[in-house]
Amino acid sequence: MVRAGAGTNQEAVRRHNLGTVLAHVHRAGRISRAELTSAMGLNRSTIGGLVAELEVLGLTEQAAPTGARTGAGRPSPDVVPATDGAYVLAVDIGVAGLAVARVGLAGRVLSRATASIPTSRTPESTCEAVVELLRLVVRESPSGSPLVGLGISVPGLVRSADHLVRLAPNLGWVDVPIGTILAGRLGLDVDVTVGNDADLGALAEHLRGAGTDDADLIYLSGEVGVGAGLVVDGRPVGGGGGYAGEIGHLQMDPAGRLCHCGNRGCWETQVGAPAIAEAIGCPDDRVAALGEVLDTQQDAGDALRAVGRDLGAGIASAVNLLNPQVVVLGGYFRSLYPLVRAEVDETVRSRALVAPNEHVRLALPSLGADSVLVGAAEVAFAGLLADPVAGLARSLRDVEAALVA
Amino acid sequence: MVRAGAGTNQEAVRRHNLGTVLAHVHRAGRISRAELTSAMGLNRSTIGGLVAELEVLGLTEQAAPTGARTGAGRPSPDVVPATDGAYVLAVDIGVAGLAVARVGLAGRVLSRATASIPTSRTPESTCEAVVELLRLVVRESPSGSPLVGLGISVPGLVRSADHLVRLAPNLGWVDVPIGTILAGRLGLDVDVTVGNDADLGALAEHLRGAGTDDADLIYLSGEVGVGAGLVVDGRPVGGGGGYAGEIGHLQMDPAGRLCHCGNRGCWETQVGAPAIAEAIGCPDDRVAALGEVLDTQQDAGDALRAVGRDLGAGIASAVNLLNPQVVVLGGYFRSLYPLVRAEVDETVRSRALVAPNEHVRLALPSLGADSVLVGAAEVAFAGLLADPVAGLARSLRDVEAALVA
Ligand SMILES: [Zn+2]
Ligand SMILES: [Zn+2]
Repeated sequence: MVRAGAGTNQEAVRRHNLGTVLAHVHRAGRISRAELTSAMGLNRSTIGGLVAELEVLGLTEQAAPTGARTGAGRPSPDVVPATDGAYVLAVDIGVAGLAVARVGLAGRVLSRATASIPTSRTPESTCEAVVELLRLVVRESPSGSPLVGLGISVPGLVRSADHLVRLAPNLGWVDVPIGTILAGRLGLDVDVTVGNDADLGALAEHLRGAGTDDADLIYLSGEVGVGAGLVVDGRPVGGGGGYAGEIGHLQMDPAGRLCHCGNRGCWETQVGAPAIAEAIGCPDDRVAALGEVLDTQQDAGDALRAVGRDLGAGIASAVNLLNPQVVVLGGYFRSLYPLVRAEVDETVRSRALVAPNEHVRLALPSLGADSVLVGAAEVAFAGLLADPVAGLARSLRDVEAALVA
Repeated sequence: MVRAGAGTNQEAVRRHNLGTVLAHVHRAGRISRAELTSAMGLNRSTIGGLVAELEVLGLTEQAAPTGARTGAGRPSPDVVPATDGAYVLAVDIGVAGLAVARVGLAGRVLSRATASIPTSRTPESTCEAVVELLRLVVRESPSGSPLVGLGISVPGLVRSADHLVRLAPNLGWVDVPIGTILAGRLGLDVDVTVGNDADLGALAEHLRGAGTDDADLIYLSGEVGVGAGLVVDGRPVGGGGGYAGEIGHLQMDPAGRLCHCGNRGCWETQVGAPAIAEAIGCPDDRVAALGEVLDTQQDAGDALRAVGRDLGAGIASAVNLLNPQVVVLGGYFRSLYPLVRAEVDETVRSRALVAPNEHVRLALPSLGADSVLVGAAEVAFAGLLADPVAGLARSLRDVEAALVA
């Protein structure tokens, strides 16, 4: 409970409320004052004052209301994010490639660039390539528009306490402080967050994608390895250290293939990229781009259909354990699922218990290939949304000049 | 955010605060006014007023303070639950037997009775036996002391929306409204809640047992079948319909034994009671009392050690997926774990990934055999804690007379 008091306390409450208004605008993209009044339980004039301050800060602007007119008089304008307002930089370090984006409030992808990852995949060479991409996406950024955060996604286990990448097996990274390395290489004093790719995909699909109405969501990430991002009761699940979601290492078959984790028959050995590549005869040098290869397949053969059944069996295990409303199939599963939908659906139906089965649907990501990038942007905005005044005070302007220099 | 306003709103805030004070007393067992002041962010005189009202309601009383004296003057008395104050009835319907208890605030088990379950195991005969046990435990209840709720645990899937038991396989129950049946049979107009046994065990061990300092906990229930109760980030996990935790139906071996769910190689076929019974040569008519049988074992043979490894493999899967701080081994796992601790621990260590492994410990329930019963009492107190005034208005007094009549 946030209670108003004297002096600094009152100022803290005002900033908190300012952040809450901005978070509503960010979440909804466009919102009326009436909706803000009802969502926040504050009176109309207080909301008006907060909205006016966000405009002065250059974070929001007015837009003609779209809702039906109720009552007499002209309705107040809606609140939308300011054009050329605050933005973040999002970085998706994948096993196959790099994607970066400049993302505005409300999750608007303003510009985007991609490249393949350097073959050495070292943190340093990767950061070098990321910096080049970031230069591209800030090139058209309006001068004076504030950069408020940088969010990085990695396909690995990230310690929540300090964002250390404990293990990214398919990059060969162990205990890599990627946020610190990239910030140092950029030479920019900006808030940096690092997250696991599936966790960020789950967050994005929950907030802006296939699961906006679902309190319980599993996002599966097929990215050479297999991971999951979990949302339970509307909240992202980190676990004790931030490592929750390592669904690729569920034991599925004690007589199965050897996994890089040292055990046999992990789910990842059945539905990871190498297993799928083998099933479709994909050459080794194309495994990292498995999604594209799958997109060229006309139909599934017996081997791929068997992979589909293994995919369904693992999903069924997760459904039994977590009773989600939706399982979103991200990464190369976006390309695999349409090919083996019958096998996946039928296996989930037969392997999950009747009751949780009633609640679950399988879905492709609404954000397409951008789920992870949008999720990385989302966490990068967290500081600004917690306290817009402090967030702007820490922001950087004229990033292009700083980066290109 | 709960904000004070005029009229009924102000009254709602006062009742909410009253409930929050009571919840602190209930959680802690004993608490000082200074602790309440700091925990609730209200001033000392407001806390004093709320405490005085709880005393008038007969819910709490004063106790000499135990903490060190700080500052001048005599410290205010601590707040403790009132002797002969509000209580709930908790019912644990197990596959092997029935346990009921009268439980006071702070989870004090005031009286307790157990019996075997009727061999027919029908909802009606079970309720009949439960009513007999409830008569026993209310016999010594002080006249006038208010019954504020009845909590029932079942080994099955309970729909959160209406507490319907969708499936309790080892009781042979499908779609049984056990709360309604028991309330009708009792003839008492009291709030009834129904929960899954593992969910309730998890709640109790998190609030009062082996995981009070752990935001992320898994409670495993071995009760013929195998289930789990999950606590994530300090909150119990229900899932979309209330069915989360069906860990017994994780696929562990596609070539494994047939499970009652229709699939092969579910974890329950490896570490459920029948598998353990076979490993130790336990006769069929003793399987329901497997814990007691295991308690008589001097040491584990090869077959039981293999079960221990299967137990560890399933725990490792759950650790990889959820990254908990503690896994509590309840039900007959309480008796099994000490016999095969080396096999379980070693398998978890080798099968779970390094990072989540650093965070997890395996533990026996601190509440012993009472975890589930204490959890059932906990949810039965929820109405009183949400609004003590309304909760008492709905309570029943002289329950003994009503029940024995
Ligand atoms: Zn593995
Ligand atoms: Zn099963």
